[in-house]
Amino acid sequence: MANRVINKIRIALIQLAVTSNKDNNLKHAMSMISQAAMKSRADSADSITPLVVLPECFNSPYGTQYFSEYAEEIPGKTTQMLSQIAKEEKIYLIGGSIPEKREGKLYNTATVYNPQGEMLLKYSKCHLFDIDIPGKIRFQESEVLSPGNQLGMFEMSGGLKIGLGICYDIRFPELSLLLARKGCKLLVFPGAFNMTTGPAHWELLQRGRALDNQSYIAACSPARDTKATYTAWGHSSVVDPWGDVIIKAEETEAIICTDIDLDRVDSVRQQIPVQTQKRNDIYQLKDC
Amino acid sequence: MANRVINKIRIALIQLAVTSNKDNNLKHAMSMISQAAMKSRADSADSITPLVVLPECFNSPYGTQYFSEYAEEIPGKTTQMLSQIAKEEKIYLIGGSIPEKREGKLYNTATVYNPQGEMLLKYSKCHLFDIDIPGKIRFQESEVLSPGNQLGMFEMSGGLKIGLGICYDIRFPELSLLLARKGCKLLVFPGAFNMTTGPAHWELLQRGRALDNQSYIAACSPARDTKATYTAWGHSSVVDPWGDVIIKAEETEAIICTDIDLDRVDSVRQQIPVQTQKRNDIYQLKDC
Repeated sequence: MANRVINKIRIALIQLAVTSNKDNNLKHAMSMISQAAMKSRADSADSITPLVVLPECFNSPYGTQYFSEYAEEIPGKTTQMLSQIAKEEKIYLIGGSIPEKREGKLYNTATVYNPQGEMLLKYSKCHLFDIDIPGKIRFQESEVLSPGNQLGMFEMSGGLKIGLGICYDIRFPELSLLLARKGCKLLVFPGAFNMTTGPAHWELLQRGRALDNQSYIAACSPARDTKATYTAWGHSSVVDPWGDVIIKAEETEAIICTDIDLDRVDSVRQQIPVQTQKRNDIYQLKDC
Repeated sequence: MANRVINKIRIALIQLAVTSNKDNNLKHAMSMISQAAMKSRADSADSITPLVVLPECFNSPYGTQYFSEYAEEIPGKTTQMLSQIAKEEKIYLIGGSIPEKREGKLYNTATVYNPQGEMLLKYSKCHLFDIDIPGKIRFQESEVLSPGNQLGMFEMSGGLKIGLGICYDIRFPELSLLLARKGCKLLVFPGAFNMTTGPAHWELLQRGRALDNQSYIAACSPARDTKATYTAWGHSSVVDPWGDVIIKAEETEAIICTDIDLDRVDSVRQQIPVQTQKRNDIYQLKDC
């Protein structure tokens, strides 16, 4: 079965309630991963290995003042737990992101596991979130974090390529364009938009990336906590390659599941064949 | 006044009712241009030279079976009329597009005039509209048209750079990214989406391009004619650099006017500075 070409996968996004207690966050995340695995399998007629996704910064509150205290090395306690639960539940697992400590620097890093518990990818956010909207929100990740320096993608058994970005990365069309060109039909963005950029841009960016790349987009946010110093918008969602939102959470904790139908990607790309109509004599997107 | 830096312009989009009678189309277009010029000036407290925009294929029905019959050379009758009215009304004029005959080939071409009636730009659509959505719509511009081979941009007195694309060009993020990088703060797309792609993608594409490039997007459609062989969606609109639709027509003939506030572009680009946060060590968009 390992080399069977798959044309459908089941994805589950965990819109996790994150607190300031790291141990509780980890315990709760593991319990929610088990629930998501069960829900994915229960909802699906096929025996497809599910892909479960955690949100950005799932073991720590989101904020530059927290990253150093909550950060750990990879491998470390959090990633060992992620590896173990992926193996126990026999799932693919995108471990949202965590503050990572590496050679004296801090990163916002996601890890991905296969059903054998092996780490398939380690990706550090390469566009740091530095914005300043007067009277609304100022946030400067670069005050404490260092950026990653390469794209993130991995392959599931059966040949499906999946691209990975973290939150602010979704604002850069070039990143998604490159991932799609490299064969990704699903792009996943763990992300924590806020109460200013969330209502304005969270869905628009996902729908835009989906349509431009004729790919599925899945974006997984933490649940909203209005008492936190940074209030996440929530509304984790999945958008199809036509640009339509096919499933969306509210702002509270939730697990949302849907099918990713790869035949749908091929069909949209055939109907409006923009991927093969690029004018590479006028512009060219280079992979550096 | 010629070298004054302008921070605001007034744009008027003419959602023109187009028929199969070319002479009537031209006569009607000239009358609507005069109305748009008057409306722009009446609505505006400032004495700013307006920018008036016609839709794609405004002197001919839209359809591969019509292009050859309605096509003309440039300069020719239609473009001479456009030049003259721009001068008479003292406006900048984006002459939508017309089927152009050039060295034995046909193009979908837009021309732009300054208030002296001089042609500032001639731009031919460089992504031809070839789509095939079974049971909905099949259209193959490339069966009769040849594509242009370069980007379109022009500069208004006062230094404002404006990018130009035609309809299907809007589906290619690279084109808009390059125009914005070259300094355009307003991108204009004369375009005729249809009853399938219109409701699904017309507004999403405009809002996506606006947000990604933190630029104004103006898209000008012909009015809907349900008896035509190709039924345009209408809904000409202007989107601001935050991704919000600031004005939108219905499907019937209309002139819509709004201000383009260049300070708003600068302010959004400062708040969320994605234009300066590109990772050119990971990806690079080249201008060929």
